Amino acid sequence: MNAKGHKDNFEHFGYKINVVVSPHDCQICHPIEVSQYSRSKKAHAYGNLMNNPIYETLVKTVIGLKTLEDNYIVVTTPSESTLHETCLGCHGTKVEAKGLKKVTTMLGEISFPNLTNWPNQGVGRINPDGSLGSCTACHPRHSYSIEIARKPYTCGQCHLDPDVPAWNVYRESKHGNIYSSKFSEWEFDQVPWIIGKDFKAPTCATCHNSLIISPSGNVIAERTHDFGSRLWVRIFGLIYTHAQPESGDTSIIKNKDGLPLPVTFSKEPASGYLINKSEQLKRFKIMSNICNSCHSSDWINSHFAKLDKTIKETDDMIKATTDLMISAWKKKIEDKTNPFDETIEKMWIRQWLFYANSIRYASAMTGAPDYTSFKNGWWYLDENLQRMMDWMEFKKEIGD
Amino acid sequence: MNAKGHKDNFEHFGYKINVVVSPHDCQICHPIEVSQYSRSKKAHAYGNLMNNPIYETLVKTVIGLKTLEDNYIVVTTPSESTLHETCLGCHGTKVEAKGLKKVTTMLGEISFPNLTNWPNQGVGRINPDGSLGSCTACHPRHSYSIEIARKPYTCGQCHLDPDVPAWNVYRESKHGNIYSSKFSEWEFDQVPWIIGKDFKAPTCATCHNSLIISPSGNVIAERTHDFGSRLWVRIFGLIYTHAQPESGDTSIIKNKDGLPLPVTFSKEPASGYLINKSEQLKRFKIMSNICNSCHSSDWINSHFAKLDKTIKETDDMIKATTDLMISAWKKKIEDKTNPFDETIEKMWIRQWLFYANSIRYASAMTGAPDYTSFKNGWWYLDENLQRMMDWMEFKKEIGD
Amino acid sequence: MNAKGHKDNFEHFGYKINVVVSPHDCQICHPIEVSQYSRSKKAHAYGNLMNNPIYETLVKTVIGLKTLEDNYIVVTTPSESTLHETCLGCHGTKVEAKGLKKVTTMLGEISFPNLTNWPNQGVGRINPDGSLGSCTACHPRHSYSIEIARKPYTCGQCHLDPDVPAWNVYRESKHGNIYSSKFSEWEFDQVPWIIGKDFKAPTCATCHNSLIISPSGNVIAERTHDFGSRLWVRIFGLIYTHAQPESGDTSIIKNKDGLPLPVTFSKEPASGYLINKSEQLKRFKIMSNICNSCHSSDWINSHFAKLDKTIKETDDMIKATTDLMISAWKKKIEDKTNPFDETIEKMWIRQWLFYANSIRYASAMTGAPDYTSFKNGWWYLDENLQRMMDWMEFKKEIGD
Repeated sequence: MNAKGHKDNFEHFGYKINVVVSPHDCQICHPIEVSQYSRSKKAHAYGNLMNNPIYETLVKTVIGLKTLEDNYIVVTTPSESTLHETCLGCHGTKVEAKGLKKVTTMLGEISFPNLTNWPNQGVGRINPDGSLGSCTACHPRHSYSIEIARKPYTCGQCHLDPDVPAWNVYRESKHGNIYSSKFSEWEFDQVPWIIGKDFKAPTCATCHNSLIISPSGNVIAERTHDFGSRLWVRIFGLIYTHAQPESGDTSIIKNKDGLPLPVTFSKEPASGYLINKSEQLKRFKIMSNICNSCHSSDWINSHFAKLDKTIKETDDMIKATTDLMISAWKKKIEDKTNPFDETIEKMWIRQWLFYANSIRYASAMTGAPDYTSFKNGWWYLDENLQRMMDWMEFKKEIGD
Repeated sequence: MNAKGHKDNFEHFGYKINVVVSPHDCQICHPIEVSQYSRSKKAHAYGNLMNNPIYETLVKTVIGLKTLEDNYIVVTTPSESTLHETCLGCHGTKVEAKGLKKVTTMLGEISFPNLTNWPNQGVGRINPDGSLGSCTACHPRHSYSIEIARKPYTCGQCHLDPDVPAWNVYRESKHGNIYSSKFSEWEFDQVPWIIGKDFKAPTCATCHNSLIISPSGNVIAERTHDFGSRLWVRIFGLIYTHAQPESGDTSIIKNKDGLPLPVTFSKEPASGYLINKSEQLKRFKIMSNICNSCHSSDWINSHFAKLDKTIKETDDMIKATTDLMISAWKKKIEDKTNPFDETIEKMWIRQWLFYANSIRYASAMTGAPDYTSFKNGWWYLDENLQRMMDWMEFKKEIGD
Repeated sequence: MNAKGHKDNFEHFGYKINVVVSPHDCQICHPIEVSQYSRSKKAHAYGNLMNNPIYETLVKTVIGLKTLEDNYIVVTTPSESTLHETCLGCHGTKVEAKGLKKVTTMLGEISFPNLTNWPNQGVGRINPDGSLGSCTACHPRHSYSIEIARKPYTCGQCHLDPDVPAWNVYRESKHGNIYSSKFSEWEFDQVPWIIGKDFKAPTCATCHNSLIISPSGNVIAERTHDFGSRLWVRIFGLIYTHAQPESGDTSIIKNKDGLPLPVTFSKEPASGYLINKSEQLKRFKIMSNICNSCHSSDWINSHFAKLDKTIKETDDMIKATTDLMISAWKKKIEDKTNPFDETIEKMWIRQWLFYANSIRYASAMTGAPDYTSFKNGWWYLDENLQRMMDWMEFKKEIGD
């Protein structure tokens, strides 16, 4: 199938087979799903991380092997192998076919394509046929089950604490409680998926991508495989929240300061790359329509008004933290060349990447009060800011 | 129903309905449950937090938005909205009806009562009809299921790490293991609940509130909706453990130092507000009777003797930590005006609120050795005390 | 049964019964399982911890009650009771029968054997009859269920974060996702266990000990109750990884520096106590044979080549950290007498016991990229090393 396009195609016991089954293969039967997916941020997850110099610096700083030289820490370039099993485990690796190699198997020596960074099932995998993504990330072989994709454990493989704690928040929420208590009585294979009949509380798929209809047959939400397309605000973009990007490829974004970030350090959104108010409103209506199947309009309005406030407050907290770090740079307490490799800088990362993100997720996903309060929530946001102040004092002291 | 008492009642398409269904409504059919519940600490969870000046200071310090002014952290008053989705998410908000407002819905513009801090399902919610609590916290609409209430995920919405890690401990325990492996073969809807037949290992509800009978029909424990009424010792009261309070309203407690705490900083219990030895023994017998359905008297005695020792040891560790903080105050290293807003003080909070609590829960709930040893257990209690010593040195240094 | 050998045997309502059912009792029907188990590291878990002076020092330092004397922390000997519910909760206690005692029960006063450190179900429990282990650790009474033993919650009672995060990693992995989504359709009681038919994704037992056959009836792996016998490398030995030990009793190991550790601080493996290359290869083949039921030889080779690289990198990171600590000792910044009781030392422990271990588990168990990247993974390994450097500066400063 599609043998010509596949650089990983090889002859295997008389058959011509591909090692890396890709969206190009799946689209023969599922063209709409693949087309939608190809526009999503997920499909671009490799480039969004690795082709953005700022994110790439963060990656390299964290996972690069460190050595000690004269009591200084020297960061070396991360190995392909560690990249593969850390960030690119979720984001997807670049799989290239480099000729053939011989492998000893139980059936004797066999030639296989020599693939880089394989095996991998990351959502933005770059395949040897040039396509982006890996359908098996959510529909694992060989069942390709819609049930598995709709259960929250699938999303929870990547969307979990500390940086994207959707799964953690869900598990602690009222929705998650009802799911955990009653899932065995629900239908996860029905298409369309009837809200209130097939299931009584949403899973991730309900709100973010499934085709949902009412018991009387009205369409509540159309299916989409562009997973961000029902979202109006991005709550875990680097540093500050912002309107969702227009393109799934976020590596093209440039803010006013010339940095490849959707918002400046002083909290100004990049112009021209983010969706506008009317698109935001359109998406908000799609989502609130889903909520409306169970909740009143007043409930929904109050819920999202609270989220708006939380977004503002957490952004303000991050602004204060960022100002503090910038003052440390100005005072030469730390060095801004690499904004991720010193102690105060790492505390700053925790503020937005772990704590502010967590509070926003817990607020958005209808309630995980323990998460907002304690676990990676306000407790940490507050404590860490306090410690940053103390470290400023300390580092000034030892710098003298 | 009960329309007169409900300030949140309004006319809706020809019906007079209440927005906030309250215990007053539920008690028409369930008077005993509501009456028991009204005496519980849960029913008073709002006031127990917000009407206690010490706890309220803790809340405000942690979740108040911080701003930087001349490199000083300024704590501002928390927003209603953040309070609502953090502490009061579990404790319950104060819901007041302030006239009517117009809301745009799919059916056009509709008048709704204008409710403060709504929606909320906290256990101590103050309702517009004056009642306390929210039955839907554990029996979610529209199934009001006894099965959901008996499954541990329900309690796990609020009783989880780092401050009240009952759910975390359960999940790691032998009881939790057997539950997770076998729950699908058990009956969660039977009333009374037959121990050894309907279920083979306890969930939270078994030990803390359900009506439990033996296979031969003998009552092992009567049902109660006063959830602390089978407990003799409170293992997560502020700072130190203590005998359970007599009243569900703990905001009335005053200790010898005049503080609204059940124990003094020097570990002396408040007199007059806590249950006495004979009441403690009575409750211990109710609980051990439940254990006795599966375990021998010797097993039970040994288990609880171990808990007694753990309570004593963790209290002693907290006493040492508190003494250390008091010495920091005396040496003017930190300022005692607000005991929660500086670095050493925050380390002190971790000792009792996170670590000592966790060890006690793991000890009480028949075993989660990884939790007592590592995760928020002795490892942290020890390491954090060591760091407090170092911070004392450091802060003395920079204070000079 | 076996009454003579049982020092805990006593007369109870006309019967002679044993309180502590032990492997000696179980072996009457299950001699092979008990014999295999007796050779495992699990069976020796008590002695491997408590009879190794280095590990014992670590235990005592962490869980010993601390008191303050003149603002110094004094570590006291841990109580039997705390040992019992922390480390020995998993490792097993030493249960000795010390005559009889009278216990008040619902049936009146009854004589029971006076047992030390009882109840306990640790895997290396030392029983009054002299046998090692507790079958009920994984096959809880009174069902002794093979289903429970094969479900991952059982292993997850002890093998979990932060030190041995097998359960955490599994839960986040593709294998764990498929298990959580589909377990209710699988057979957990079938013997032999047919891969691809009885279950579609492995649980812990599949890879580590069950008798696995193919749908056509070929034996894929023989059953073993020596749980390490399919493993070639030990990824959470103290400080560095190393070839699996030859004997289940690891307290006999001595390295070149004369310390009871499998590797020296400078990363040289102890000679004579660890399995050789050919035994390693033999075990690797058993394991990869299991993987081969679902995955290709190329997939398996690439996976384990990645693990090899991760083992090397994490060992190198630990070497850098250990060198840093040794330089702190040389500069008299901290004192090496007890290598576990000061701040930099505790940071060093975190590097290998929490962070390097976590990365290796996530790498070995086919993928938990969030765990390798963030939660106890590279983020922490990197941040903690950076903080160690800062603490070196700080401690040098205050030491002056």
